[in-house]
Amino acid sequence: MSKTVCIVCFDHFTDIDTFLPWDMLNRVRLRDDGWAVKLIGDKARHTSIAGLETPMHGGLTDANAADAVLFTSGAKGILPLLDDDAWLGAFDLDPGRQMIGSMCTGAAVPAKLGLLDGLTATTYPTSVPLLQSLGIEIVEEPMIVHGNIAAAGCLAAQNLSHWVIEGRAGKATADDVLASILPVGEGCVAL
Amino acid sequence: MSKTVCIVCFDHFTDIDTFLPWDMLNRVRLRDDGWAVKLIGDKARHTSIAGLETPMHGGLTDANAADAVLFTSGAKGILPLLDDDAWLGAFDLDPGRQMIGSMCTGAAVPAKLGLLDGLTATTYPTSVPLLQSLGIEIVEEPMIVHGNIAAAGCLAAQNLSHWVIEGRAGKATADDVLASILPVGEGCVAL
Repeated sequence: MSKTVCIVCFDHFTDIDTFLPWDMLNRVRLRDDGWAVKLIGDKARHTSIAGLETPMHGGLTDANAADAVLFTSGAKGILPLLDDDAWLGAFDLDPGRQMIGSMCTGAAVPAKLGLLDGLTATTYPTSVPLLQSLGIEIVEEPMIVHGNIAAAGCLAAQNLSHWVIEGRAGKATADDVLASILPVGEGCVAL
Repeated sequence: MSKTVCIVCFDHFTDIDTFLPWDMLNRVRLRDDGWAVKLIGDKARHTSIAGLETPMHGGLTDANAADAVLFTSGAKGILPLLDDDAWLGAFDLDPGRQMIGSMCTGAAVPAKLGLLDGLTATTYPTSVPLLQSLGIEIVEEPMIVHGNIAAAGCLAAQNLSHWVIEGRAGKATADDVLASILPVGEGCVAL
């Protein structure tokens, strides 16, 4: 059965919070060709905060049909989008049928979309006041999960990716993918 | 004083082993505009194993004048290059004046260039026989350092990046950059 995961990007996105999930989620595709990972945005290419011009695989509305949607981080890029009704209006997400996750400051988008109402979340330390201003209670943990909704911070991207893969491809695949990127001695066994 | 770090890429490079150092090393640039990070290769764009078309910032010979050179990983891309005399011949590296590091299977390149002669290294578990065939003794550790030469595996990319930044920008900057990407509660302090 095919599964699609979308990572929502924008200009000035944080490289590591996008490319670490991108890498891990694509490792599922190498094991299951029914699995697809798409970087999506409102332009054909977005440039990261570190200056990497990155091609997108689809537009924002692709998120609405995806099995899982991850919002990447980058305060410089996200802040203006929180006041952009056209950008926000592209999303019609449903945690009843979709897994919805965020990295660091990315939590501000599901918060603004009302998806975190009444829930706790985690975010980048400097973005705690932003999330609080959106009515979200922030807990200082690497990752916070409420059913189909999760928020993770920075190098907890590996935990967030594991959560998506376990939810959509099973625990064995998720454990296998995580083992394939762990430092020597902690993951795969040497031949 | 300006410093340049080159990350050597090729088609089918491993995303995480390239973009994690790319992100961390660029965080130094945000603190010190004399610092530069370049993805280099023998084409204008290289495509990662996960399918991301990535623009390069320079050619292979740029490595020879860099303050630090990191070889990213990806067995599918590296294996044919080990028999490519033109590709290998572009490099004229000197660990006396340059820091030279590798991620996972990337260790095969400095090994082939003779830079690891008589040294131990670490690599991706499935590439241990390859490195052994090049005469390198492999130790199962996340990262192995010999003076200006280091080999790291997978998520030890953060250790490798810290090593480069400490060597070329100082320990305070390296610690600051690492703290900025650690999971919530382990790195930066929330406001």
